[in-house]
Amino acid sequence: MHILDDKFKEECGVFGIFSRDNDDIDVASMTYYGLYALQHRGQESAGIVVSNGHKLNCYKGMGLVSDVFNESILSIFDGKSAIGHVRYSTTGSSHIENAQPLMKKYKSGNIAIAHNGNLVNAKLVKDELSKDGCLFDSEGDTEVILNLIVENKSNDLKEAISSSLKNIKGSYALVILTEDKLIGIRDPNGIRPLCIGKIDNSYILCSESCALDAIGADFVRDVLPGEIVIIDKEGLKSDRFTDRIECKTCAFEYVYFARPDSTIDGINVYESRVKAGKILYRESPVDADVVIGVPDSGIPAAVGFAEASGIPYGIGFIKNKYIARTFIAPSKKLRERAVSVKLNPLKMNVEGKRVVIVDDSIVRGTTSKRLVEILRKAGAKEVHFRVSSPVVKCPCYFGIDTPYRKDLIGANFSVDEIRQKIGADSLAYIDIAGMIESFGKNDKKDYCLGCFNGLYPMPTPDKETEALV
Amino acid sequence: MHILDDKFKEECGVFGIFSRDNDDIDVASMTYYGLYALQHRGQESAGIVVSNGHKLNCYKGMGLVSDVFNESILSIFDGKSAIGHVRYSTTGSSHIENAQPLMKKYKSGNIAIAHNGNLVNAKLVKDELSKDGCLFDSEGDTEVILNLIVENKSNDLKEAISSSLKNIKGSYALVILTEDKLIGIRDPNGIRPLCIGKIDNSYILCSESCALDAIGADFVRDVLPGEIVIIDKEGLKSDRFTDRIECKTCAFEYVYFARPDSTIDGINVYESRVKAGKILYRESPVDADVVIGVPDSGIPAAVGFAEASGIPYGIGFIKNKYIARTFIAPSKKLRERAVSVKLNPLKMNVEGKRVVIVDDSIVRGTTSKRLVEILRKAGAKEVHFRVSSPVVKCPCYFGIDTPYRKDLIGANFSVDEIRQKIGADSLAYIDIAGMIESFGKNDKKDYCLGCFNGLYPMPTPDKETEALV
Amino acid sequence: MHILDDKFKEECGVFGIFSRDNDDIDVASMTYYGLYALQHRGQESAGIVVSNGHKLNCYKGMGLVSDVFNESILSIFDGKSAIGHVRYSTTGSSHIENAQPLMKKYKSGNIAIAHNGNLVNAKLVKDELSKDGCLFDSEGDTEVILNLIVENKSNDLKEAISSSLKNIKGSYALVILTEDKLIGIRDPNGIRPLCIGKIDNSYILCSESCALDAIGADFVRDVLPGEIVIIDKEGLKSDRFTDRIECKTCAFEYVYFARPDSTIDGINVYESRVKAGKILYRESPVDADVVIGVPDSGIPAAVGFAEASGIPYGIGFIKNKYIARTFIAPSKKLRERAVSVKLNPLKMNVEGKRVVIVDDSIVRGTTSKRLVEILRKAGAKEVHFRVSSPVVKCPCYFGIDTPYRKDLIGANFSVDEIRQKIGADSLAYIDIAGMIESFGKNDKKDYCLGCFNGLYPMPTPDKETEALV
Amino acid sequence: MHILDDKFKEECGVFGIFSRDNDDIDVASMTYYGLYALQHRGQESAGIVVSNGHKLNCYKGMGLVSDVFNESILSIFDGKSAIGHVRYSTTGSSHIENAQPLMKKYKSGNIAIAHNGNLVNAKLVKDELSKDGCLFDSEGDTEVILNLIVENKSNDLKEAISSSLKNIKGSYALVILTEDKLIGIRDPNGIRPLCIGKIDNSYILCSESCALDAIGADFVRDVLPGEIVIIDKEGLKSDRFTDRIECKTCAFEYVYFARPDSTIDGINVYESRVKAGKILYRESPVDADVVIGVPDSGIPAAVGFAEASGIPYGIGFIKNKYIARTFIAPSKKLRERAVSVKLNPLKMNVEGKRVVIVDDSIVRGTTSKRLVEILRKAGAKEVHFRVSSPVVKCPCYFGIDTPYRKDLIGANFSVDEIRQKIGADSLAYIDIAGMIESFGKNDKKDYCLGCFNGLYPMPTPDKETEALV
Repeated sequence: MHILDDKFKEECGVFGIFSRDNDDIDVASMTYYGLYALQHRGQESAGIVVSNGHKLNCYKGMGLVSDVFNESILSIFDGKSAIGHVRYSTTGSSHIENAQPLMKKYKSGNIAIAHNGNLVNAKLVKDELSKDGCLFDSEGDTEVILNLIVENKSNDLKEAISSSLKNIKGSYALVILTEDKLIGIRDPNGIRPLCIGKIDNSYILCSESCALDAIGADFVRDVLPGEIVIIDKEGLKSDRFTDRIECKTCAFEYVYFARPDSTIDGINVYESRVKAGKILYRESPVDADVVIGVPDSGIPAAVGFAEASGIPYGIGFIKNKYIARTFIAPSKKLRERAVSVKLNPLKMNVEGKRVVIVDDSIVRGTTSKRLVEILRKAGAKEVHFRVSSPVVKCPCYFGIDTPYRKDLIGANFSVDEIRQKIGADSLAYIDIAGMIESFGKNDKKDYCLGCFNGLYPMPTPDKETEALV
Repeated sequence: MHILDDKFKEECGVFGIFSRDNDDIDVASMTYYGLYALQHRGQESAGIVVSNGHKLNCYKGMGLVSDVFNESILSIFDGKSAIGHVRYSTTGSSHIENAQPLMKKYKSGNIAIAHNGNLVNAKLVKDELSKDGCLFDSEGDTEVILNLIVENKSNDLKEAISSSLKNIKGSYALVILTEDKLIGIRDPNGIRPLCIGKIDNSYILCSESCALDAIGADFVRDVLPGEIVIIDKEGLKSDRFTDRIECKTCAFEYVYFARPDSTIDGINVYESRVKAGKILYRESPVDADVVIGVPDSGIPAAVGFAEASGIPYGIGFIKNKYIARTFIAPSKKLRERAVSVKLNPLKMNVEGKRVVIVDDSIVRGTTSKRLVEILRKAGAKEVHFRVSSPVVKCPCYFGIDTPYRKDLIGANFSVDEIRQKIGADSLAYIDIAGMIESFGKNDKKDYCLGCFNGLYPMPTPDKETEALV
Repeated sequence: MHILDDKFKEECGVFGIFSRDNDDIDVASMTYYGLYALQHRGQESAGIVVSNGHKLNCYKGMGLVSDVFNESILSIFDGKSAIGHVRYSTTGSSHIENAQPLMKKYKSGNIAIAHNGNLVNAKLVKDELSKDGCLFDSEGDTEVILNLIVENKSNDLKEAISSSLKNIKGSYALVILTEDKLIGIRDPNGIRPLCIGKIDNSYILCSESCALDAIGADFVRDVLPGEIVIIDKEGLKSDRFTDRIECKTCAFEYVYFARPDSTIDGINVYESRVKAGKILYRESPVDADVVIGVPDSGIPAAVGFAEASGIPYGIGFIKNKYIARTFIAPSKKLRERAVSVKLNPLKMNVEGKRVVIVDDSIVRGTTSKRLVEILRKAGAKEVHFRVSSPVVKCPCYFGIDTPYRKDLIGANFSVDEIRQKIGADSLAYIDIAGMIESFGKNDKKDYCLGCFNGLYPMPTPDKETEALV
Repeated sequence: MHILDDKFKEECGVFGIFSRDNDDIDVASMTYYGLYALQHRGQESAGIVVSNGHKLNCYKGMGLVSDVFNESILSIFDGKSAIGHVRYSTTGSSHIENAQPLMKKYKSGNIAIAHNGNLVNAKLVKDELSKDGCLFDSEGDTEVILNLIVENKSNDLKEAISSSLKNIKGSYALVILTEDKLIGIRDPNGIRPLCIGKIDNSYILCSESCALDAIGADFVRDVLPGEIVIIDKEGLKSDRFTDRIECKTCAFEYVYFARPDSTIDGINVYESRVKAGKILYRESPVDADVVIGVPDSGIPAAVGFAEASGIPYGIGFIKNKYIARTFIAPSKKLRERAVSVKLNPLKMNVEGKRVVIVDDSIVRGTTSKRLVEILRKAGAKEVHFRVSSPVVKCPCYFGIDTPYRKDLIGANFSVDEIRQKIGADSLAYIDIAGMIESFGKNDKKDYCLGCFNGLYPMPTPDKETEALV
């Protein structure tokens, strides 16, 4: 659908709320608005599970949060705690069975789970569980985690969870709901984000802080790597389920995935993007008449580049606001006719000018090529392409939908080859050190840079690697 | 639906294409993309009529262009010329019967019409026609025009049209399709825009030039007030259907309705908005730390204000991209909890700062009040509100959906009273002269300023006026 | 939509269930299947309200029961008692606001109501209530009843209801739900049916006994005219809210509306229809080769006619099973081409034969005419039309959607004129005495025969009468 | 969805129309109504291709004919010839890619094809074609046939088709459309039906004669096994594409698939079913009080059984008319509560009686068991089950969706074992000779009886056999 949308895809957003004391909170509506704020993390399916104290009720469906739920559905939910999930639309298995949260019975009641991330040893664990007669209804990793918990012999839920997590490897930000508890978990590397908020006496867990703003809640803190937080009538308790902790937040959250109004692990996303633009200018300066950004995620870096360079910032493209899943992509013939239906260049800002165009990343290169063409057709004298992330060279195994290596332009060509392919007069990427600098001066903090340098926080499965390569 | 969208509503967009010679153009697809570019002018319904030379075929439906049409439908259209229409969603009569284009039989075949604008004497003419036994299927003005043409006794289409137009008063940008002709008409005051484009040897007519860009066509010129252009196999012929011509382009097209990448009657919309921001600073300067714009239409004026003032421009709000008709608006209770689901302030740009917020207009004032609240909650030290259009005091009779006068805040309160109501530290509107200056130095050009000063290009119907007042 | 469906339309079906003791009953699912069994009483909208003991939750939507509800929606309902409603699709006001059950707050909690019937003094009562500041959200009668109850000053619900009912006149079979009670009411004339069923220790109320069969419940008895039954944890209690009771069951329930597998006020619908066929033969015998019935409601009377006459019964028409709301009715041109898309005659049963065709009623006569044409085209030598209800001459004011008097063929023409119009060789209707005989020998039982003889159980509103005449 | 619908499933219906001379026929509407009459042959998807003389236009979608098409879509079709297709909903590959007609380019234009049947050597041929570089977009057999034709080297279409058909084995009733021709083909065994009709000067091809009645056309004759008929402006020409012809019409068409108002290969379906009922009584008489049929397809045989036995015929079950794809099937728990939502027994016809129940076939036996239970619960004293087809023992390879052999009750159990399983007092099937007798005295006519006796008209693929066994 997105002809100009050649980006990595995030795989999920999670949300949870536990209403305490006499807080008069409609948890289903709160979850609805929280998921709506996290909609950018997944548009394939949406689901909400509400606990009414003695039963969990679940509603999920394919599509956007606003497609799946209506007022009547929200109104028949009844309860004081809830979790929700939005899932990204991969092409393959877009089935309702894979929609989350997932729900199962376990020893002492029901349990529901929502997951953002990806396991690297899911197949192995699944095979083990299947051997023991465990059945799977969905294709995803999440049911592996859920079944581990459900099959665990311990009568204590926290222990069952902690012990289950010892068996899995990969990235996971989890929210779990039982009749009387809301639980949040972040993997030992903290690859995917998860934070805690508060409204009156009630607690919220969510993938990004922008969901707290959406519902008028206050940010408390991030869940720590390897931490498990348990919220119930008594309040919030925290524990560690492992000691082998090493924070490796996914760098791409800052570069592209997260909403600019979120703050993740102490780093404000918008601020880091503006800084990246400044550093990008410092690293790869160019003489030009105007700096423009690719809407929407390239804008903050363009603003930073303009500020650092003194070159005026201008709006380069007008984006059609009416993007829909059902939009018919132009045929090749029409594309050759220079149809530009999603982004239209603002001629007065580019005609006869030397243009710096800033984007956050280049994945396949097809969009970048198209943008350069459009700018030239609109009269740009020169087009200098600047990218506020380093060259993407490797696939992700931790929750991002990346194309096969053969389709990753950065995995197969030099920067100058890419420049030629996209037709720019110059091309520069920020380097890895520059990107890390843009995140701030916190020297203790570390990041997962796997897609840039191939160094992952843990061994990745060989077979699947080959498949992806 | 749009809780933060307290704006005037445009009532329609029109598009037409006539493919000549051997141009291998898929006119149905072209119309689809053209309408998609004009989607901001109407989201209630969409329709396309295609002529295959001996018959007109019509398909229309409720919803966005991308909802109404799919590839199969476009593919079964067959022909060399087409017109299309997008219609605004008024609350009242959202019925398929009112969707356009409208189609009828007439003496020498079939005729289809698509209309942007509003007649002020529709009721009178309709009553006359009804007396003569003419039947109406829809509620709108457009069928009045169509029936006048169809009932006209002349055998010559152009004459039938010209003579029909003498009976109607109001605003109208029309595209008309017959088996072998595409016709474009603009009312004698040129209140609503209509322009001509060309691609190879084929002609396009459309409400705004952005639709030409979308399909890769070149801008030729605007249709003139009082002009009728007839396109057929021979090419384009122009004529006047009246001599009483006085150009009065709707000023609100520049202020808010039109897409910033369009150029209307020689004035680039984006440029005029930036200029308005500059003039606004000149007229009502203020000392501040940051200038922010209300997305999306307030941004260019904010950029202009920043540039003129030297105060840094910043992104003030992150807008949720997943706006849908089915979105559930937050309840009053949730709004009081400071839920901010559509626009989230970017704290780092406003916290502790004196903020200038620029919007293009204030209609009811509800949104403005909410924005000021949100900014204060995000930590703004001062909030100075600037509006890049003059105070809106009167309803529109020429194609804009305006609220009743009692709901127009500018019709009932002084600027200082409005300031108090919205809770801003200061409030200023551009004045009418300033706005006209922003459109450019073309002294000959005139505008309809009715909603600002109550002076309309022609007498308005008294009864209806009362109803609206 | 129904080209061959020229029948009166029933206006509603109601259902209620109260689960007692430890009966493990899923009341939402039970209501779903109960409404599904009553679907023939209304296809416009469907709704369910469930009480979870401290709150009423409502879900309703436009369309069939199977369109409105899905498994997820049913599963998130939680509770031990419920009511449901199906509503007939009138052309005018097919809005969700008019869908039932309706729900309001009252002194001691929430109250929901579902109604089958029609008030004759609704406008008067509504005006009274409105004067006292009472607000109405829907157009229907039902909200009048609900508001009377809600506004009543008594603190005792039963008293509030009884006193409210004193103010209304017309037909009403009502089911009412509060947090802890299920209430059933039938108007003093018992015009619309309502019966009581039981499953284990749990009670059911529903319009027709076929809904009891559908869910495996046992029939207990009919609710009596003027009776109010209150079901709660203690069991079922009965009371009368008036002494002016005179049973006048709508005769058309037996003739056409009710499902043949229902038993209403002691009369089995199927049996009465077969008997009507026998009496019809006795009254208007004819020599013929085959008796056929018009599917579906004419079949039992045809079976009876065949049995009484000794003429063989045959299947006359094959009905297309795939009838849908979205079906495109054939154009006049196609109808003239003898297109027969809904009913196809079974040639081998009619070709060269003298055919008796039995239908339950004739309303406009258009379908009857069409059926005679189709039979003749299929080779019938003679066509004798027999109608198992008397001539319909007057509109209904008690819950049936009847056409204007000018469209009622029986109100405007003699039987012989009708015969000529529909093109039959002979035509006979059962007479009123014959119809009453078909209902059984119960001499004490009386019926509303208003649509046949203009004698209604109570005065009808004059103004509205005129409008209908 | 169909809890009481334990039947074989037909796999398709086809329709074609070629309008000649000045016949003023709307071929798209005709195809719509024709497909609607054939809807029982497939409910998964529907499609229409129309030729306007120089181009083929196609529209298809998932769902019923009335879901897929609306008036606007039909109205934009333009042309004088058309084909259409309805497809059965198998659970597996319910994708739009498999919807028919299929369309491709070939040497001299475009070609569209619609197919009812199944090839037994599709995989082999597909592999051959793929080796030669031929690409496939769908999973079905039909594209194999289409690609054979398209890839054929002959410039003469008839020759290309005839030569292609030599490569395929199985059952096929085909309609093919090009810009200027409509072609009908039936496989050398004539397993699936196809007939010719006429309206004015225009020709129709369709799976069953009921589609001719639906559109007011006259039946001309059946297409012969091994015949190819070509219809164009000149009229209808017939040829044989093979000499190895042996008519083997599928016996199940008469038993269950075809509509009773159709006549196939000279045998009237209704008549054959009534006769089967008579023969069934002769073969397996029983003393009883009433004969009832299972709606809808068991009714005619019940009528015949009653007539032959002198036992009165009665309506045994009332069928809910509002069956929809979205209907929620009752849970096991509810089924155990004797919920009977689709078929409700008419108590007065079965209570205290010895009942003969006639059905057309038993596949899995689950429905039969349920029906016996329901009858007993309704008070039947004895239940004698009679089946108007022989025991189904083998899968079908020629266009019917049959369950795995392990699920075919007749393949695994003796008649008495089946009787015990379904709980009947007696059980009898018609024997094969009896069924053939019911088809008429035409000794020359032969049938495919594969599902009854395992003797197929041609060798079946071993591997797949195993898979099915």
